[in-house]
Order: sequence, then structure tokens, then C-alpha cells
Amino acid sequence: MRVVGLDPGISTTGYAAVERGANGDLVALDFGVWRTDPRLAQSLRLADLAGSVAVFLAKWQPEAAAVERLFFNSNVRTAMAVGQASGVLLAEAARAGVEVFDYTPPNVKLSVAGFGGADKKQVQSMVVALLHLDAPPTPPDAADACALAICHLNSGGLRRAIAAAART
Amino acid sequence: MRVVGLDPGISTTGYAAVERGANGDLVALDFGVWRTDPRLAQSLRLADLAGSVAVFLAKWQPEAAAVERLFFNSNVRTAMAVGQASGVLLAEAARAGVEVFDYTPPNVKLSVAGFGGADKKQVQSMVVALLHLDAPPTPPDAADACALAICHLNSGGLRRAIAAAART
Repeated sequence: MRVVGLDPGISTTGYAAVERGANGDLVALDFGVWRTDPRLAQSLRLADLAGSVAVFLAKWQPEAAAVERLFFNSNVRTAMAVGQASGVLLAEAARAGVEVFDYTPPNVKLSVAGFGGADKKQVQSMVVALLHLDAPPTPPDAADACALAICHLNSGGLRRAIAAAART
Repeated sequence: MRVVGLDPGISTTGYAAVERGANGDLVALDFGVWRTDPRLAQSLRLADLAGSVAVFLAKWQPEAAAVERLFFNSNVRTAMAVGQASGVLLAEAARAGVEVFDYTPPNVKLSVAGFGGADKKQVQSMVVALLHLDAPPTPPDAADACALAICHLNSGGLRRAIAAAART
């Protein structure tokens, strides 16, 4: 089972491709960030991001994409840009035939670090341990993308519970 | 000069293609709405919208796209979905080589109806008059898209003023 994690942003989008090996272990195939040029128009930055994710999905052919569920903070300008980046990622995933699942930050923390109130450092330590890395992925957006992918791979039960709750 | 107007939404996106003819008159080449199926996953709805706008831009080959500047109301859920739809439209416009301009609702009202506080009915009446239509475009999202395109065609001066203000 191969899953990509995507942490949307207009300036910086985190990405990760993570696989569960035959022995049950998790393996990080790829992770990093895509940055867009702030001197460009918003539409060109979004097209750049669309191209990056399309190439990434074509390369890794994941079975699913785990994306952070949008959570709008008080900064409307940031929120708008995150929504736009997220829209582009979701549309490209659908075009590539990849099913998208979204997780809130507490979902991710619960699944990766064992409790929903874990801090960023604890999540990063668990990402290092679960993926057998030497150091936390940097920048933090890349670590967040790894955590999203791990969350999806580890939380079949959680996902079914959320889906069941949404249906009631 | 041919301009498309796009009024983004996840359920309903208004579109219009408007041209200034050789005699200076405005002509509506096409207008309407794209709807996406609410039973589908968000990613599939966004990919559907991306496909629709790509076909539309390829057909009309506009020199510019006028898009409503996102304005986030208190409904975070709606705002998120509008942001995602807007991101998809902008990325597709950039991919098609079309420059994007955004206008706030008061910009549009000022340009189309002569004052920024015009109500929806007044804007619709002006759209009918300026495009020589028999009745207002329906649904309202299609009329809004027409107004956006007219705003861009009529407001070279306004646009330059806004750009100059943004630089200071």
C-alpha cells in the first residue's frame, strides 16, 4: 500500500510518498516541499503547484492521497491562499485517479503520536521512528506530509469510524 | 478584445465570454453555469470544474479572465469550497496562458452600474442593456460572470488605478 501525504500551501506545499512494506514496516520513498515564486501572479503559482503534484503522482502512482483538512484561522488572506492550493491538489489527485482522504491535525496527532494533543516535536520524533530516519524531515511541511501519509496508513480503523460517524 | 468572466463556486460556477466588437459595442458570446454533482467527492467535483474551464478557455481563447476576488463571509465551510474552486480556475487559466485579473464586488458594481453600492437587480439591468440581451442571464451566477467580464472590458483605467494603489 502506497500513500502520499500533501500539506497544502501557496508558498510551500509539503509532500511525502510512504509505503507499507511486505514486513509491515513503513518506508519513506520521497519527501520534501514545493515552493512557488512569490514574484509570480497567484494563477501562475497555482499552475506551477498543479504541475508539480501531477508529476509527483505520476511518478509514485499512490493508492491514496492524505491531505490536511482545511482549518481556517483568523488570517483570511492566508486562509484563502491555502484553500486555493488545496483545491489545485485535490483536482490533480482526482485527475490522476487517486482517492483523497482528509484528516484534521488532531486526527494526525492521534494516529502518529498516540494522542490528539501531541506537539509538533513529538509528532516529528514519531515520524523519525516510524520511518527509520536519521533526523526529522525538513522543512516542517515535509514532516507534516509524512505524518499525513502515516496517519492514513495506520488509521484504517479511525477512518472507518469517522465515515460511520459522518453517516449517522 | 475578448474577456471571460468567472464567478467561482463548488456547486455552481458562473461563466461568460464577452467581446468588444469593432464598433465598440459589447457582445456576449457565451454565458451559463457549470454545476458539479454534490454526491461526488470534493476532489472529483474540482477535477470536473477544472475540465469544464479548460474546454471553455480552449474554445474562446480569451485575452484575459476576470474573476471575483474572494471575500470570506462567516460561513467557513462555504468559504473553503469557494477558495478551492477559485484555485482550480486560476491554475487552469494560467495553464491556458490567460492572464487573470480579480475584482471585488464593489469594483464590479462601480464599473457596470456606475456606483459601488448598486444592488443585484441594478447590475442585472445594466448587464442586459450593455450586452443587448432580452432578459437577465440566469441563474444569477451567469449574470455575475457577465458583469465581471464587462467590468474588465470597461475598467482599464480603474484597473491601472488599483494596481498603482497596490504598489504604494
